[in-house]
Amino acid sequence: MKNKVSLVGAGPGALDLITLRGLRCIQNARVVLYDALVNEGFLEFCKQDCIKVFVGKRSGSHSIPQEEINQLLLKWALSHHEVVRLKGGDPVVFGRAFEELEYLQKHGVEVELVSGVSSCIAVPTAVGIPVTKRGVSQSFWVITGHTRSGNISNDIFLAAKSNATVVVLMGLSSLGKISKIFCEAGKSHVPVAIIQNGTNENQNFIVAVMSDIVSKVSESNIKQPSVIVIGDVVGLCPDYIKEYGVKMLD
Amino acid sequence: MKNKVSLVGAGPGALDLITLRGLRCIQNARVVLYDALVNEGFLEFCKQDCIKVFVGKRSGSHSIPQEEINQLLLKWALSHHEVVRLKGGDPVVFGRAFEELEYLQKHGVEVELVSGVSSCIAVPTAVGIPVTKRGVSQSFWVITGHTRSGNISNDIFLAAKSNATVVVLMGLSSLGKISKIFCEAGKSHVPVAIIQNGTNENQNFIVAVMSDIVSKVSESNIKQPSVIVIGDVVGLCPDYIKEYGVKMLD
Repeated sequence: MKNKVSLVGAGPGALDLITLRGLRCIQNARVVLYDALVNEGFLEFCKQDCIKVFVGKRSGSHSIPQEEINQLLLKWALSHHEVVRLKGGDPVVFGRAFEELEYLQKHGVEVELVSGVSSCIAVPTAVGIPVTKRGVSQSFWVITGHTRSGNISNDIFLAAKSNATVVVLMGLSSLGKISKIFCEAGKSHVPVAIIQNGTNENQNFIVAVMSDIVSKVSESNIKQPSVIVIGDVVGLCPDYIKEYGVKMLD
Repeated sequence: MKNKVSLVGAGPGALDLITLRGLRCIQNARVVLYDALVNEGFLEFCKQDCIKVFVGKRSGSHSIPQEEINQLLLKWALSHHEVVRLKGGDPVVFGRAFEELEYLQKHGVEVELVSGVSSCIAVPTAVGIPVTKRGVSQSFWVITGHTRSGNISNDIFLAAKSNATVVVLMGLSSLGKISKIFCEAGKSHVPVAIIQNGTNENQNFIVAVMSDIVSKVSESNIKQPSVIVIGDVVGLCPDYIKEYGVKMLD
C-alpha cells in the first residue's frame, strides 16, 4: 500500500466553503493532523476510527516546531498510509505546505496539494469588500505580517506606495507599524478593515481610515487571527459608508 | 417569493474544486447564467428543468456588454427567483461580481457572493508552484492583464521592482510588454511560468526565464486563458529545475 499525505485547504472557516476534493480527502483519511486555524466541525466528516491529531500553532502561544510536524506527518504516513494535513484557507498561502511537501517527497511519500478557498479573498468578501473592482482596484497584494525573523515583511513599504488592495495575513500584532508606514507614505485617509473569524458565526470586524485604525482596534475586542484589508475597495463596504460616507475616487 | 441571485465562484476548472456551498447553489437554481471560463460539466449538477444561459466573454472575441449581463440577471431574478451566476475562479477576482451585485441590489434583488478557489493561487499549485514559500517569497501580487482601457495595469511597473511573486490573469496578449518591463527592471533571469487550463485535464504549461519567455510562447501552443506566474517560487517547479537547474537564492 502506498503512503500518501494530502495537504488540504479547509477554506476560511465556514464548513460549506471546503471543496468537494478536500471533503473527500477528510472522509477517506485514516489520520488527520489539523491546525488551530481549522474549524473543528470538519472532524465530524472523518471516519469513525480516524485518528485526529492537533498540531496547532498560533502566534503568541507555544507552538510545535515545523520540523516536528514534518516528522509527525512522515511517521503517520508510514504507519497509516492515508493521511490528511488540514490547514486553514489555502495550504500554499503562508501555510508552509511546500516545506512539508519537500520533506515528505524526500522520504518517498506521495504528496497531494488540495487547494482551498483562501481567507485573503473570501474573508473580505464575507463583509462586503471585494479585493478587486473595475475602476477602483486593478490588483491585490497579499503579504504575511509574520516573517521567519518575526518582523513584518519589507514588502509592506512598497505596498504602501502602490495602488494595489493590500491584504495582510497574521498582521494584527504589527498593526502599529503597518499604520505608520502607510501614514508616512501619505495614505492616512485610506480605508482599512480588520476582520476576525471571517465567514464563521462569530465573525467580527471593524472599519476605519488608516490614521484611526490603531485606536479603534484598542477600543474593540478584535483579536488574532485576523485579516487586514487596506485600500479604496474597503470604501465599498456598507459599514464603512455608514460611518465615513461614500469615498470619492479620482 | 424573494428574488435572489447567487454570484458563485466555480473554482479554477476541475469539477471537484467547487465548494459545497457553490454546488448547493447550482443544484437549487432555476436559472444558471455561465461564463466561457466555466467548465460546462458543472451544468450536469443542475435540476432537470433548470434554464442554462451562456453569457460568455472571452478576450479577443465578441462579448456581451456588462450592462446587458446585468439586465439579463435582473430579468431572470424577477421571473425565476433563484438564479445562479456561475463564474470561473472566485467571483471578486477580476470577475466584475461587485458591479453585478450593486446593480441587482439597486433593483431590490437579494445578492449572495459565494467565494470560490481562485485560479491565481490554485493554477500555479497545480503545476507544482506555491505562490508563497518561507525563505523564497513573503507575498504575492495578483494583477489583471486587461484593464478597462484595454491596456496593461500600471501596477506591473512597481510589481517588477518588488520581491513579490507576481501573478497576472488574462495577460497573455500583453506578455511582450510584461517581459520588457521586467527585463528593464533587471529581472531578465527571473523564472516565469505560463499555465493554460490549469487543474483541467487539458492543462498545458511552459516555464522559462523572463528573457526567453516570449520566444518560448511563440514556439508553443499555449493560448488564452492562461495564468502568468513570475518569481523565484517558479524555480521550485520540477519542470523548471529539469531545464534550468536549481535556482540559487541570496
